[in-house]
Amino acid sequence: MRTSRFFLSTLKEAPSDAEVISHQLMLRAGMIKRLAGGIYTWMPLGLRVLRKVEKIIREEMNGAGAIELSMPAVQPAELWQESGRWEKYGPELLRCKDRHQRDFVIGPTHEEVITDVVRKEVKSYRQLPVHFYQVQVKFRDEIRPRFGVMRGREFLMKDGYSFHSSFDDLQREYRNMFDTYTRIFTRLGLKFRAVAADTGSIGGTGSHEFHVLADSGEDALAYCPDSDFAANVELAEALAPSEGRAAAAADLQKVATPGRITCEEVAAFLDIPVTRMVKAIAIVWNGKAEGFAGLALILLRGDHHLNELKAQKTIGEFRFARDDEIIAALGCPPGYIGPVGIANIPVFADRSVAVMSDFVCGANAKGFHLVGVNFVRDLVDPMLVGDFRDVVAGDRSPDGRGRIELCRGIEVGHIFQLRSKYAEALKCSFLDECGQSRFMEMGCYGIGVTRVVGAAIEQGHDQRGIIFPAAIAPFQVCIVPMAYAKSDAVRAAADALYAELTHAGIDVLLDDRDERPGVMFAEMELIGIPHRVLVGERGLAAGKFEYKGRIDAESQLLPMTEIRQFLQDRLCAA
Amino acid sequence: MRTSRFFLSTLKEAPSDAEVISHQLMLRAGMIKRLAGGIYTWMPLGLRVLRKVEKIIREEMNGAGAIELSMPAVQPAELWQESGRWEKYGPELLRCKDRHQRDFVIGPTHEEVITDVVRKEVKSYRQLPVHFYQVQVKFRDEIRPRFGVMRGREFLMKDGYSFHSSFDDLQREYRNMFDTYTRIFTRLGLKFRAVAADTGSIGGTGSHEFHVLADSGEDALAYCPDSDFAANVELAEALAPSEGRAAAAADLQKVATPGRITCEEVAAFLDIPVTRMVKAIAIVWNGKAEGFAGLALILLRGDHHLNELKAQKTIGEFRFARDDEIIAALGCPPGYIGPVGIANIPVFADRSVAVMSDFVCGANAKGFHLVGVNFVRDLVDPMLVGDFRDVVAGDRSPDGRGRIELCRGIEVGHIFQLRSKYAEALKCSFLDECGQSRFMEMGCYGIGVTRVVGAAIEQGHDQRGIIFPAAIAPFQVCIVPMAYAKSDAVRAAADALYAELTHAGIDVLLDDRDERPGVMFAEMELIGIPHRVLVGERGLAAGKFEYKGRIDAESQLLPMTEIRQFLQDRLCAA
Repeated sequence: MRTSRFFLSTLKEAPSDAEVISHQLMLRAGMIKRLAGGIYTWMPLGLRVLRKVEKIIREEMNGAGAIELSMPAVQPAELWQESGRWEKYGPELLRCKDRHQRDFVIGPTHEEVITDVVRKEVKSYRQLPVHFYQVQVKFRDEIRPRFGVMRGREFLMKDGYSFHSSFDDLQREYRNMFDTYTRIFTRLGLKFRAVAADTGSIGGTGSHEFHVLADSGEDALAYCPDSDFAANVELAEALAPSEGRAAAAADLQKVATPGRITCEEVAAFLDIPVTRMVKAIAIVWNGKAEGFAGLALILLRGDHHLNELKAQKTIGEFRFARDDEIIAALGCPPGYIGPVGIANIPVFADRSVAVMSDFVCGANAKGFHLVGVNFVRDLVDPMLVGDFRDVVAGDRSPDGRGRIELCRGIEVGHIFQLRSKYAEALKCSFLDECGQSRFMEMGCYGIGVTRVVGAAIEQGHDQRGIIFPAAIAPFQVCIVPMAYAKSDAVRAAADALYAELTHAGIDVLLDDRDERPGVMFAEMELIGIPHRVLVGERGLAAGKFEYKGRIDAESQLLPMTEIRQFLQDRLCAA
Repeated sequence: MRTSRFFLSTLKEAPSDAEVISHQLMLRAGMIKRLAGGIYTWMPLGLRVLRKVEKIIREEMNGAGAIELSMPAVQPAELWQESGRWEKYGPELLRCKDRHQRDFVIGPTHEEVITDVVRKEVKSYRQLPVHFYQVQVKFRDEIRPRFGVMRGREFLMKDGYSFHSSFDDLQREYRNMFDTYTRIFTRLGLKFRAVAADTGSIGGTGSHEFHVLADSGEDALAYCPDSDFAANVELAEALAPSEGRAAAAADLQKVATPGRITCEEVAAFLDIPVTRMVKAIAIVWNGKAEGFAGLALILLRGDHHLNELKAQKTIGEFRFARDDEIIAALGCPPGYIGPVGIANIPVFADRSVAVMSDFVCGANAKGFHLVGVNFVRDLVDPMLVGDFRDVVAGDRSPDGRGRIELCRGIEVGHIFQLRSKYAEALKCSFLDECGQSRFMEMGCYGIGVTRVVGAAIEQGHDQRGIIFPAAIAPFQVCIVPMAYAKSDAVRAAADALYAELTHAGIDVLLDDRDERPGVMFAEMELIGIPHRVLVGERGLAAGKFEYKGRIDAESQLLPMTEIRQFLQDRLCAA
């Protein structure tokens, strides 16, 4: 493509209402154009990226045995009434009436339609399994559309639905899709993680989310760089430290810590690491099974944070104690409370606390802490030791294969075992080998195609603009000729290079405008083209082109005869 | 593709509500599945055809310099209010309100949206011309959707919009699109005609329709096989016969024609060709300019039909005379009226009549006609000679390059010079070379992508099913093995052939099901695969495959080593 025949339209500044970097850069690069809130036109530059994402998804879905079809955007209300979602879906469902006053929806998803197709088309176990997918426009009437295509109202989605005669077979296809999604996001050139919706292991769970890793992501994730483990931080299990509890070495002492309340303040005051601190959180616990109701303490290491969900799972219902309840029970305000010298107050400890010795905690006296505290010697072992906290970087990975790191992610894919929910609601059944009618098992598998583009930019950008993976960049290579219009030599060399690269199957943009090189450089960097070749008279005289990768610090001179091979090698390596 | 990994689902009988053959065959072949009136799911088989049509359209549009983008389906009402179509469009426009009670439409077309994009993006003549197109889902709430995808409510359309700084440049692009559409429909393998919306010549007119020729088409067309001329029958000009009026040779005679009223009856009774007859049509003419109001006659050759539109254009307003008005003026009932011996009654004659001599017409006496009638000798020349009739097969083509033939067509494309209608309504202007602000000139260019598929089937089918052009067939070649599951030799040969053809870039379906050959043959013919190769043990023993083209009467045995080249030759020739 030549810029003179293409439509580039970049902006120096992003509109002020663009909150996130991908939205800002997509507007500045001229990839999208706002039509209404959460509704965008994909301009030629953006559409090229979108189509490349689509193509990779299609190739991998087809390769995995899924079959493409195309369902309508406008769907009759009857199907949604049958599934019960006409009432349940809420205002995100855009509804309308046709000229005959019949109700329709603009499809936000297609479980109803595909189940209707399958219940009419598939009658026998012999026709199962079957997996249909489509790449199709959806509409969800978000209350506050924002972040550009990351949370738009009209968006492009790959949605697939598989139907099975048994749960075993659904699980087989689920794993197939897990692998397929892994291949898709790998080919897209994105750093990503598959995250189990519950425990973090693939076996037996009903749902995985695929997250593109980016600092701006809405979800906090824990993952292990040495294994496939990944989970939402809130759900990742914090294992007990592998080392056991050391023997007591220090004496128990009461020290004044005037005005120091938080663990960080106390640790700084005492000049010890905060990991030597134990904090006590006072709760009002309703331990019915234990015949107890009243104040209790949860102990955490000083640098850890309570995970309420895990705590509720482990000990049942509780609420945080009020200051007056704490003072009444322990005789001092929060900030100085601790587990030593208390009676009839249950103590729960996080696994990390249970292995500590010579630690520091509140003395249950205002302005004082205890140092050199040890279980057994100074206080009894906790009533219960469990996982009460969020994982932190450096924790052992729950799969035992390395250390956890933290990151943020953007959900771009989701695979889900629906089981027979829709099949039962819509009476989608088949005759099994024994002639018995049974409901089908069903899985669904989505990728937010438009969102992938936004997420790729959240992951890949710098001060100068977008850094696209080569697989989805609008063009793989740009040729920037200096004085294309004025220099016959430059024009001839640029045209020849353009022809050579295009012939080799490389997606090239030749910037044949009469612009200053600085303007062209800035624009090519803004729109995220991975490889740039400068054609100038000085280089030509020496038989060289000047190459610069999008993220390279310096350009390099390469012999004209070697440039094609050089680019092909770079593109293959990407 | 192997049938075992694909989803074929054919029907023996079409549902009774399918009125036209393409609808019946698309349902029977399992190409589409009805979701609601005029709303269809494109099943995998149908989608393959649709995608091939799309691909050809895209390649030609890109090649012609148009740039693809993608506009939203859901559009804000404000733009439609700005263009005035919010009120004018009527109930075909599907309207809805979002959760904030703002009005939206599900786009039936995109003039408003693209004009909004362009008015924001294009400011200078330097950015013009520009031509954007998309392949996008549209919705038109037809009052009576029918004929399957031929007149659906949700459908896929290629819509392009070009913007120009001058009318000259719009006309240049219009011709470019005329040529591009011609290439597209040629590559699609369809018999088609470009039909001018008015006079039938490309120069200077504002609109052309592209029709796929099919007996079932809704539009009657006149075309010239020896030139590009084509027009709606109602609009095609009927030229004067090239031969002049012969001298009178017969005497005028009054003959009894009892009970014979129509030209056909009289001609049969007199044993003469109906082309020797002249029929007179009595009208009440309001010839204001001529100071006349009252009965008048229009004369047509016996085999011709009045074209009211042309007649109104030529002589102005009129209505058909009532029987009592005819009897009062001419003294006889219709069926026996004629132009001889009448006074003060204006006579208009079609060009074909004006050159006749020795003709037969009504005698203005019940039960009698005149034979051997001649202008000048027996009656004065007509007051006005003009084009009053529909063209018929054999007429001279208006471009003077051959004879007209008649056919029926299905409109699948439309190109249109919109001029500045939308640009003015939406204030889409640019600064010209002199810094003056001017409205852009605009063209629009549509192809009904889903409709093309239906039209192709209307044009290509027989008793056994669909006959697709190879360019858009769901598969180009099918391999039908006899006893694939049971015969190792057949399976090995079929698999090897499948691999060889696929490797050669041929789109092959290998029917690896355990079905009887008759069932497989019928299904492959129903779904319209152009080329079939049968692999059987008997043929293999002789080193042969059995080939049959979809429209061949007989199959032929071909050496196994030659089949690939044979198929490639056939596919290239198509």
